[in-house]
Order: sequence, then C-alpha cells, then structure tokens
Amino acid sequence: MKPRGEEEEERGAAGGGDPWKECAEVAVQLALRAGQIIRKALTEEKQVSTKTSAADLVTETDHFVENLIISVLKEKFPSHRFIAEESTAAGSKCVLTDSPTWIIDPVDGTCNFVHRFPTVAVSIGFAVNKELEFGVIYHCTEERLYTGRRGQGAFCNDKRLQVSKETDISKALILTEIGPKRDPATLKLFLGNIERLLKAQAHGVRVIGSSTLALCHLASGAADAYYQFGLHCWDLAAATVIIREAGGTVIDTSGGPLDLMSCRVIAAGTREMAMFIAQEIQTIHYRRDDEN
Amino acid sequence: MKPRGEEEEERGAAGGGDPWKECAEVAVQLALRAGQIIRKALTEEKQVSTKTSAADLVTETDHFVENLIISVLKEKFPSHRFIAEESTAAGSKCVLTDSPTWIIDPVDGTCNFVHRFPTVAVSIGFAVNKELEFGVIYHCTEERLYTGRRGQGAFCNDKRLQVSKETDISKALILTEIGPKRDPATLKLFLGNIERLLKAQAHGVRVIGSSTLALCHLASGAADAYYQFGLHCWDLAAATVIIREAGGTVIDTSGGPLDLMSCRVIAAGTREMAMFIAQEIQTIHYRRDDEN
Repeated sequence: MKPRGEEEEERGAAGGGDPWKECAEVAVQLALRAGQIIRKALTEEKQVSTKTSAADLVTETDHFVENLIISVLKEKFPSHRFIAEESTAAGSKCVLTDSPTWIIDPVDGTCNFVHRFPTVAVSIGFAVNKELEFGVIYHCTEERLYTGRRGQGAFCNDKRLQVSKETDISKALILTEIGPKRDPATLKLFLGNIERLLKAQAHGVRVIGSSTLALCHLASGAADAYYQFGLHCWDLAAATVIIREAGGTVIDTSGGPLDLMSCRVIAAGTREMAMFIAQEIQTIHYRRDDEN
Repeated sequence: MKPRGEEEEERGAAGGGDPWKECAEVAVQLALRAGQIIRKALTEEKQVSTKTSAADLVTETDHFVENLIISVLKEKFPSHRFIAEESTAAGSKCVLTDSPTWIIDPVDGTCNFVHRFPTVAVSIGFAVNKELEFGVIYHCTEERLYTGRRGQGAFCNDKRLQVSKETDISKALILTEIGPKRDPATLKLFLGNIERLLKAQAHGVRVIGSSTLALCHLASGAADAYYQFGLHCWDLAAATVIIREAGGTVIDTSGGPLDLMSCRVIAAGTREMAMFIAQEIQTIHYRRDDEN
C-alpha cells in the first residue's frame, strides 16, 4: 500500500476531474516567485562558471532558483520526479519515466542573464506517463506569463495564444539559437542552416538567446518557425505544451515525431512550414539528454 | 531679415542657455504618441509592400507615423530640415547640412512589426551644424523610452544608462543585424563575420531585428558591441547620441570616425572592443545614404 496521501497527491489535490490543477497552480506561483528573484539578481554582480563549453554559463542564481523550485515541489508532491538543468549538470540522470515528472529550467537564457540582456525566463514543464500535461514559462523582465495545459489552450497573461498560419517560407520570420558547441564544424553547420533559410527568402532570422522565449514568440504567432540543435528537454517541455495548445506543430528535425530527449526540435505554426524547415536544414549532432 | 520668429525658433523657444530643450521635449512627446499608434497597429491586419529587396518591408503605419511626426515638427519648427526613412524611399534627398535637421525612423524593425514580433521602435535624432544634439528612441511594446542629449547623459525612462566596460571578446555579447541585401555574396560575408566572432569565443551573437533597439541594449550595458552593414542614418542618429552619452564608442567599421551616411557602424562599450571588431570583420558594401 502506498504511504498516506501519496495516491491522492499523485493525482493532485483536486482529484479525478482535473487531476493536475493544483500542480499547474503551484507551477505558476513558483515561476512568478523565481522571476522576482531573477529580476533582482539581473541588476547585481554575478559569479559566472562554465559547463560544457566556454559559452555554456551558469551562475549562483541558476542553482539557487532550481533548488528553491525543487524543494517546494518535493515538499508538496513527495512522490514526483524531477529533471532539471543544474541537477543534470551535477550528475543526476535525465530519464523520463511514467511517474509525474517536473522538467525545469530555472534560468533560460543564462548568457543573457550574465550580460543583463533582458530576455530571460523560468520554464517549468510537467509530464505524466511520458505525456506533457502543462507548461509554465515566465519572461522575468517583461513579466509575461505563458501557460499551456493539455486540452485547455495556451495563454500569455490572460490572452489566448494562436500560432501563425503561414505556410510560405518567403513570408516567414524564423527563430533559432546557436547552441553550446562552438567547434568549427558545428559553426559551419549552424551558419549554413541560416544561409539556406535566407536563400529560400525567409523575411529574417532572429537569435534572441533564450530558446523558451523564442518558442513563446512562436506560440504567440510573432514568428513562423523555430528550430534548434543542442537545446535540452528543460528548454522544450513547457514550451511544447504551450505551442501545441496554441495550434502549432512541434516535431523532430528529421520531420518525425518530437523526441524530448533528442536535443533538437522544429516548431512551427503550420505542419507545412515545419516540414519545409526539416527538409532544408542540416543536422548538427548533440548527445541525447538521456545518454549522459 | 528672417521671417518673424524664425530666429528664436531655430534656437528653440527656451533661448540661449539650452537652445534645443523644446525640440527635445517635442521629440519625446512625438515618440510616445507614435509608439501608441504603432502598439495599436501591431495587433491589426497590415498591408505590406517591399522596397529595395523582398526582405525590405514597409507598411501604411510607417508612412502614417512618419507623416504625423514630420507634420507636427514642420508646424512647430518651419525652418528645420528632415531626413526620414519613407520620404527618402520616395525620392527625397538624404543630405545633412548645417541647418537643424531631424533624422527620423518612424518604425524601426518593420519586419518585426509585420510579424507582430514585439521588438519595434520609433527613433528621432536631431543634428545642428552636422553635430548630433539629442536622440529619442521609444520601444513601443515594452514602453521603454531611451533619451540622450549631448553633454547631459543618457537615460532609459528615468534610469541613467552606462555602457559595459568589457574589453575581452571572449567575455562579450555581440549584436548585429542582417541588412536588406540578401544576395549570396552578401550572405557569405554576413555569416562569415558572425563565424569570426564566435571563433574568437564571443559568448554569443544576438539578432533581434531592430538596429535602434540593439543599439539601446548596447547603451544600457546589456551587450558589449554592435556592428552592422546596411543600416541607415535614421537607424543611427538618435542611438549614437544615446550611446556616446552612456560612455560608449561609435565608429566606422574601418576603425575610423563614424560617418553617419556611410550605412555601416561599430558601437561598443569600450574603444578596445570596437577596434577588435573593426579588425575582425569583413566589409559588406552598401551604397551611401547621401548617394541616392
């Protein structure tokens, strides 16, 4: 028999009808609280360390916010599991099971954060039976809260999100990010992909330094496609629910179904746009999140 | 003899002590009013036309806002001259004389504007005797007002701006923009320049789709350098005052003094950083603004 309360708690306090309602509400409260901490820390001096490359940065705020979020969630939902950026960097396994699992990026856009470039977010996703149930992303400086719940739509603050319906690359605004690997071969592929899309007459390519906020722009219809190699499941989890609930497509860069652990993604307002990008871009190989 | 009032009006209503105070105040009011119009128009359907290339876009809002700003200024300051993006596209000469001259970009980030990508600004610069006196840039969606007056500092809303003091490229965040030319040779040079800076281990390169707002990030210390080929004097005029008053350097891409009409620029927090970029990047040729 399960310990006292665990079964109800696994389904959330609200019970059968909306089993993850309480979890989603807690996620919103935690994202707002984390955002407040990050906003304050943005103006202060930072201790910066590097992880997988000289461009893969981490600060004490990343650790502090991640510990805060996980400690609150562990107390409220002791049977739940966690995948989070800094815990993974510190050696925790990054494996998605059927258990209710929180997938957390405490500070997305750490390089922006270090430079006080005001494009920084908290991302909290939640999956059960390997299916993404909800996502919460908070743009810390602009105080925009993006939320999506499976089957219940996606919102920015109280405004419903709707992706772009564009199918024509020559009318498209595309978002991407550089990724942590900076060896010459990777840079050639990264820049070659931008070249291919600009030669296909995309209106433009934007690089804003936060995968999750770029994906939120996609969800809000402010861009037509996003692709990236070298992002992680914690960049993708929350945003994937938000984009799908805004009517968008999130797939693997091969054109097949999304694999949350594969460190690569194409998201677009339309399936046609996503498939065009899939055919156009060349693969940049990154190790899977669950291989570490 | 000059017509009634013209002489005082040329020096601004406040007279000798602060001759361009009234002009600067009018610029702020106009930028805020234009920003309100642009913010509203962002949510509406747009008629989009192209100019020099398929990626060089213009909307009815660009024309409407430019006409509004110029008509108000002409009434208040009938002897002043104007250089403005859409008037130039329509055939007006783009020549800076010693007369008091307003240099205006009604909607900077038109491609963003068309896509509802929320990075769009109004830029109003002012020069006398070919010297930039003040600049006003308004980030329409985030409602951030950047101002700079020669000798009086630069501000974002009421906060004083201060550039980054970074001199080391391997700790730098760099901003650039694609520019309107998209032929294969230009794209190679554009992407080659990013490659050079990333190989020099810059933390990252950002492309946000608005030259003036990128330059405002530079002024606020949120990035360490900005460079671009293919921008115009109306993208540069206001931002140059703001950056210089925030302690930054604005030079030509050759490393020499800025030439406002040369359609190219490097701006940085430090002279060392600007000179490093000047040595690193390859020139992309654009026709001068005053050659059209």
